[in-house]
Amino acid sequence: MSGNQLDQKSKAWSALFSEPMSALVQRYTASVDFDQRLWRADIQGSLAHAGMLAAQGIIGAQDLADIQRGMAQITAEIESGAFQWKLELEDVHLNIEARLTQLVGDAGKRLHTGRSRNDQVATDVRLWLRGEIDALAGLLVDMQRALVEVAAKNTDTVMPGFTHLQVAQPVSFAHHLLAYVEMFARDAERLADVRKRVNRLPLGAAALAGTSYPLDREAVAAALGFDGVCENSLDAVSDRDFAIEFLAFASITMVHVSRMAEELVLWMSQNFGFIDLADRYCTGSSIMPQKRNPDVAELARGKSGRVVGHLMGLITLMKGQPLAYNKDNQEDKEPLFDTVDTLAATLRIMAEMVAGITVKPAAMEAAAKRGYATATDLADHLVKKGLPFRDAHEVVAHAVKLGLQKGVDLAELSLDELKALHPLVGDDAPQVLTLRGSLEARNVRGGTAPAQALAQIARHRARLA
Amino acid sequence: MSGNQLDQKSKAWSALFSEPMSALVQRYTASVDFDQRLWRADIQGSLAHAGMLAAQGIIGAQDLADIQRGMAQITAEIESGAFQWKLELEDVHLNIEARLTQLVGDAGKRLHTGRSRNDQVATDVRLWLRGEIDALAGLLVDMQRALVEVAAKNTDTVMPGFTHLQVAQPVSFAHHLLAYVEMFARDAERLADVRKRVNRLPLGAAALAGTSYPLDREAVAAALGFDGVCENSLDAVSDRDFAIEFLAFASITMVHVSRMAEELVLWMSQNFGFIDLADRYCTGSSIMPQKRNPDVAELARGKSGRVVGHLMGLITLMKGQPLAYNKDNQEDKEPLFDTVDTLAATLRIMAEMVAGITVKPAAMEAAAKRGYATATDLADHLVKKGLPFRDAHEVVAHAVKLGLQKGVDLAELSLDELKALHPLVGDDAPQVLTLRGSLEARNVRGGTAPAQALAQIARHRARLA
Amino acid sequence: MSGNQLDQKSKAWSALFSEPMSALVQRYTASVDFDQRLWRADIQGSLAHAGMLAAQGIIGAQDLADIQRGMAQITAEIESGAFQWKLELEDVHLNIEARLTQLVGDAGKRLHTGRSRNDQVATDVRLWLRGEIDALAGLLVDMQRALVEVAAKNTDTVMPGFTHLQVAQPVSFAHHLLAYVEMFARDAERLADVRKRVNRLPLGAAALAGTSYPLDREAVAAALGFDGVCENSLDAVSDRDFAIEFLAFASITMVHVSRMAEELVLWMSQNFGFIDLADRYCTGSSIMPQKRNPDVAELARGKSGRVVGHLMGLITLMKGQPLAYNKDNQEDKEPLFDTVDTLAATLRIMAEMVAGITVKPAAMEAAAKRGYATATDLADHLVKKGLPFRDAHEVVAHAVKLGLQKGVDLAELSLDELKALHPLVGDDAPQVLTLRGSLEARNVRGGTAPAQALAQIARHRARLA
Amino acid sequence: MSGNQLDQKSKAWSALFSEPMSALVQRYTASVDFDQRLWRADIQGSLAHAGMLAAQGIIGAQDLADIQRGMAQITAEIESGAFQWKLELEDVHLNIEARLTQLVGDAGKRLHTGRSRNDQVATDVRLWLRGEIDALAGLLVDMQRALVEVAAKNTDTVMPGFTHLQVAQPVSFAHHLLAYVEMFARDAERLADVRKRVNRLPLGAAALAGTSYPLDREAVAAALGFDGVCENSLDAVSDRDFAIEFLAFASITMVHVSRMAEELVLWMSQNFGFIDLADRYCTGSSIMPQKRNPDVAELARGKSGRVVGHLMGLITLMKGQPLAYNKDNQEDKEPLFDTVDTLAATLRIMAEMVAGITVKPAAMEAAAKRGYATATDLADHLVKKGLPFRDAHEVVAHAVKLGLQKGVDLAELSLDELKALHPLVGDDAPQVLTLRGSLEARNVRGGTAPAQALAQIARHRARLA
Repeated sequence: MSGNQLDQKSKAWSALFSEPMSALVQRYTASVDFDQRLWRADIQGSLAHAGMLAAQGIIGAQDLADIQRGMAQITAEIESGAFQWKLELEDVHLNIEARLTQLVGDAGKRLHTGRSRNDQVATDVRLWLRGEIDALAGLLVDMQRALVEVAAKNTDTVMPGFTHLQVAQPVSFAHHLLAYVEMFARDAERLADVRKRVNRLPLGAAALAGTSYPLDREAVAAALGFDGVCENSLDAVSDRDFAIEFLAFASITMVHVSRMAEELVLWMSQNFGFIDLADRYCTGSSIMPQKRNPDVAELARGKSGRVVGHLMGLITLMKGQPLAYNKDNQEDKEPLFDTVDTLAATLRIMAEMVAGITVKPAAMEAAAKRGYATATDLADHLVKKGLPFRDAHEVVAHAVKLGLQKGVDLAELSLDELKALHPLVGDDAPQVLTLRGSLEARNVRGGTAPAQALAQIARHRARLA
Repeated sequence: MSGNQLDQKSKAWSALFSEPMSALVQRYTASVDFDQRLWRADIQGSLAHAGMLAAQGIIGAQDLADIQRGMAQITAEIESGAFQWKLELEDVHLNIEARLTQLVGDAGKRLHTGRSRNDQVATDVRLWLRGEIDALAGLLVDMQRALVEVAAKNTDTVMPGFTHLQVAQPVSFAHHLLAYVEMFARDAERLADVRKRVNRLPLGAAALAGTSYPLDREAVAAALGFDGVCENSLDAVSDRDFAIEFLAFASITMVHVSRMAEELVLWMSQNFGFIDLADRYCTGSSIMPQKRNPDVAELARGKSGRVVGHLMGLITLMKGQPLAYNKDNQEDKEPLFDTVDTLAATLRIMAEMVAGITVKPAAMEAAAKRGYATATDLADHLVKKGLPFRDAHEVVAHAVKLGLQKGVDLAELSLDELKALHPLVGDDAPQVLTLRGSLEARNVRGGTAPAQALAQIARHRARLA
Repeated sequence: MSGNQLDQKSKAWSALFSEPMSALVQRYTASVDFDQRLWRADIQGSLAHAGMLAAQGIIGAQDLADIQRGMAQITAEIESGAFQWKLELEDVHLNIEARLTQLVGDAGKRLHTGRSRNDQVATDVRLWLRGEIDALAGLLVDMQRALVEVAAKNTDTVMPGFTHLQVAQPVSFAHHLLAYVEMFARDAERLADVRKRVNRLPLGAAALAGTSYPLDREAVAAALGFDGVCENSLDAVSDRDFAIEFLAFASITMVHVSRMAEELVLWMSQNFGFIDLADRYCTGSSIMPQKRNPDVAELARGKSGRVVGHLMGLITLMKGQPLAYNKDNQEDKEPLFDTVDTLAATLRIMAEMVAGITVKPAAMEAAAKRGYATATDLADHLVKKGLPFRDAHEVVAHAVKLGLQKGVDLAELSLDELKALHPLVGDDAPQVLTLRGSLEARNVRGGTAPAQALAQIARHRARLA
Repeated sequence: MSGNQLDQKSKAWSALFSEPMSALVQRYTASVDFDQRLWRADIQGSLAHAGMLAAQGIIGAQDLADIQRGMAQITAEIESGAFQWKLELEDVHLNIEARLTQLVGDAGKRLHTGRSRNDQVATDVRLWLRGEIDALAGLLVDMQRALVEVAAKNTDTVMPGFTHLQVAQPVSFAHHLLAYVEMFARDAERLADVRKRVNRLPLGAAALAGTSYPLDREAVAAALGFDGVCENSLDAVSDRDFAIEFLAFASITMVHVSRMAEELVLWMSQNFGFIDLADRYCTGSSIMPQKRNPDVAELARGKSGRVVGHLMGLITLMKGQPLAYNKDNQEDKEPLFDTVDTLAATLRIMAEMVAGITVKPAAMEAAAKRGYATATDLADHLVKKGLPFRDAHEVVAHAVKLGLQKGVDLAELSLDELKALHPLVGDDAPQVLTLRGSLEARNVRGGTAPAQALAQIARHRARLA
């Protein structure tokens, strides 16, 4: 048989088909517009497969050399933009295989021996995703470092800690930022866990049942840097857990980003005024000349919806599918690609922006003085003098009531006024009612005392080095 | 002041800004890559706005003429591909306004009088979506017609009706297809309801508070074919209900598509063999030469995930946003665009494919004979002779047990065997146990009797004409 | 045959079954724990069905009387708590039918003639939901009224309008609240649209194919207040669109609630201080004695997640299901019930709480004076003197820059300073720079001027009367 | 101060409050109806906290003894049902603390020293969830074992492997079931990863900032079996990652369950007839006497929607929340509780049901003979004779076309007919076209050959022992 069947594909899928795919179907089902992004992984996987086929004697040494030569040329063509992607060849796999056969003839037709697009695409996506995971891991490090370094400059910057967005207790700005470091550190842990399950080789599963050729799957896994092989061929071609799991990781990370973004927007608003962002991170308004808007933070917050939507979409896609491969699975790629792009761009820009914020300590401290932030310290003071906590809590409620009536903070009540509230109030009470006194008192592990923040920073610096 | 401030935008947003947007921020926040799709609505809206400004004496007649001339040229440039979209001009609005000012000078700088991008973009999206809604309404009609016409040829084609995917009672293939007509008819109702809420004019809300110019909002609404105006300016710029509601409509429609697709896949499988699809709707396998796969149906089923994901994404986006416009909202466009494209392509191809299915009546009828599909008819027979339904149900359970023991269908039991089950079994019992007897008996409104299917078809044809 | 087959159900489902359901299966599949909530609709539906059966001569007049008598007793038993719900009878339907047969014998066994649980449950859920929809419509009216009445007292209360949470332009507090009235008014529109599609009768579809008895479906529809009948029996038993559509309505409503809640939390925070909530709507802290937290608003915001989750769950449930009824559908009830309860409780409490907020006009006005809220007014002033808008925008950017350098608002710049910015600045410029001047200037339809707010209020009061 | 402030809570939250919570608010915000489920963890956590307080000298030895005595009594009261849960005491924490103070006086009031409900509830949920995770890990083992043992009996049972639900290649039923073992094994891996992040101690974070008492957090962690402490107090009280991550694990597991359920439903349908389920796992129909429905599988498939909905809900809940604790977080519990219950019940019943399925090998084998399942084997045969794979693929397409024309399988074509297709067809071709020949040929690692299935089974048995 001469000729290249794939060249005839615009006429019919194979001899079995009496007519070509309708143009509508071709456009609807083709994935080459988006999956061409996988080309490097596809070629990498094909070269490993061909190398193994030759090592096992399934194809000849000359076939392998031809395939390697052809793939080198295809790589050059794609990199230079000369490669012609064809819609009628459906996807990245057939496009590359068809071009290979044009270039090297029968060796190209032998490449697909013992392989199916089902295990090929699963391999490509895993290879590609593994690379992206490693890049994202780096971006998560950058984000943590940016936060740690701003924190390092602000261990003594007092701001109100909020619960229910009501002033609760004084915390340092460092301590607040370090909470986000914990979140992104957990994200990095999760990402490493996902990577373990991404990094397994489906190739060798063929269409769904394995193959009758004596493949050496371990050799291919080793050549491509996989930790192991998928142990069941039906599972290998139908599994998309790794993609869902990655999207779940990404969704949680974006939730963290959205929380940080929400706070940046709040802090930047005139009613807080805790920080300022450099002009290069702000945009203006087409109508209001005074505007400097924190667009980046808002957009990052909004993009959490996009990523969560992708997670939901992919779960819906997989739900209730019988084994093994179904065409539904082709829909896994666009959400995965878009999530990687969104997450990478968001982490990069947020890290850069956070590193450059201007902190306004006076505004933070002023805000901390509203809202009786040290009330708990007065209760603790009474407990240390012997009053049970629940009773101390009630005494302080009366103190706050008095403050509200007089329009002053607890620290502004006189010692006599305090002592009138309860006989156990001691002469050292005023000291515990200052912001700094409160801050330094919380010197328990994980607490907001400067010493604790410094310990956290030291630990993170070591970990992220 | 001479010059065009927008031409300076690569240097700084306005005089207030000390540095340009960082390149990273520009790429992250710019929407022109995707929102240029709104260009025709943007120009249409600007022309209506300018016409009203002139009618109200806010700009001069010459300004209006200049704007109209400029917009005509811009239209030509965009249609021909000559228009240069610039990333530093952020979005479709500033790109067009900047070009207009290049072309017509001060008149271009006057266009934005009494307007903000906040009300402008909301107007553009609504105008654009209204057009897409009308196109989708047509596609829903096509889909219904395709189903009705296949049904019209199959009112006497008997197939097993399933519940729990177990054979339940005989139904006609027509009746089964007409169930989907009901679903798509409801989708069309919902779409018409969404359209009412899309078709209200935000323009005139300006940034968020209205404007100090004597705008005639009703005139703009009339010029653009809107049913009315948004009655509160803060709501006008922050509302994205119409988009969520559209995505909810689209999700329900895609659930219907996914159910129909699931059935096409089942029916096409060798174990059912109820239908065949033309080769032009099938694809082959890169490894298995015998394969003809119903890829279109599977992909349509899978794409329901994508649309549902967009719905979830947009809800997440809007949740908890304070008024009025926030940059998060920019993220409404891509899911909306992709949903419109996905839904239109899916409805178009599914309607075409359904119209061309090959029905295999013999396989359907054979399947209906498995599973004691007429057992309920025997129970009904006994009820009509006077037995309470619950007792009749139990008698027939015994009959089925007998059939299972003998390996035969109820219709294959002898009259004596049937009579032995209960004295009320009449001589006419065998007739009610045939598939066709069962089918014709269900002649209640909405039932599967051919007469009812014909009535449904007549009603739908009239409705869809 | 004597005895009641349903009484034997703990032994086997019917004669066809060789063993009883396993206890695990019984617990897993039974729905009576939650669907007993439908009992009143179930009885109502059964009485209408029985009445029609008698009118059509399918059961006797005595049967009908017996059924009516039995149902009256069952109603009394359920209302008094005496009714014994049994897990082995699976659901509300079999529990009631079995008790009816105990009470009235054969008439009870005749009730299920021409009916299946598939059409029965669909009818019950629709009847029940219709009632809840009407109650929710009332709660939406209450919510709108509460907002309108607070607005009516605050048409002259100036607050900063925000975009990007940055001060944008002055708005009245009335105008801000009226934006929410628009949202809830749209929700009410949507609910009315949903009701149309809920209020169609499935009964008569029987299991999936209709029935061989001469039912009068229109009569049942009329007796139960349905607008019409489901026109295709397969669709009638498998359709859950109305539930998804209701959950989509509820999700959008909860998005509105979450936005309002977010603002209440912001306004209540010490950094805004725009409002206060009565003590009865606040909770304290177990540790911090000074705390008064806006728990209700936060919880309402959080509950949006619950409702959106139910929407997602139900869509996932229906996706890809073949026709007709599948047991999956049983899972429609709990999310629907919980959504109705959540939405009703949330609307009720938020309406009550909003009606009782304490407005702090001084804090609002002070905040509006930060952030150059009247910058657009200065630009408009220049436009009215003849400067193109884009140029005016740039002039004002310089004015704001000057204000920032001097640490003053635009209104605090001297007329000379203003005139130095551009020769077109007129003597009346200072007037347009006041908050109240700005507010009153926005007298376009839908704008924030007091006259417009009053017009909105009048319209809403008339509409909601 | 005498008396117990918590006993006054129905009058006012504290001295600061002028009125009690409204009844509506109490019902809306109270969580005790559902969070009482945490009581054992709450007491366990309190005892560890009290033990540490005493060890650190913060409370006295007698206080500790009193608390231990009180808690022992409360445990007995709750276990016996005698404990009175009170709505006005909001949650499980205040209910238990109030009762403790009733029982032991001042010691009870001292328990809350250095603690807040914010860190207390986070600790309780983690403790409880850790226990549930360990139970679920056991259920995942049971599920895998059930599958492995059915597989062990079916390594030679041939069925059609499907892609696109079209017959693809023969596989063994064992191999098919073992694909699910891989999925559930990955779920178990993921669960172990989640457990690592659940098992960290928040206690010591107090409200949000740490505490001024010299707590020994490591001691409490050790006493409660935590792997470590949460390192940042703000993060400790606001983090719900562990819950989202658990719900993501559960969603993926339920996707696997839904896929297996879909296949059980398909295989049980008359058109497949591959398996039967015991009567105790089936339910009947209220109208169709012949019905035996696979309700359990359908319901399990449907319940995937519920779990995914909970995931969506919790993500929506957390998105955009500023630090630290907000009341929104209270909504984390119900979805978490329901997910644990749903997943446990589903795994338990599916494992039991799968263990008891009746396999019908004849139906499976008959189905495998439809659809040219061995076409790939013929192509491989030609490749081994030297034909490039792409050319072999095309030859076999012609062979299938011939088979279709003659209405026979490839195995039924004569050797002459095969040889006429291509000169390389060898005398051993008929052998490779048998189902068993095909099965045994796929002896690559992970392939469907019986030897490979046996190797998988041996590995799993060892792993699960």
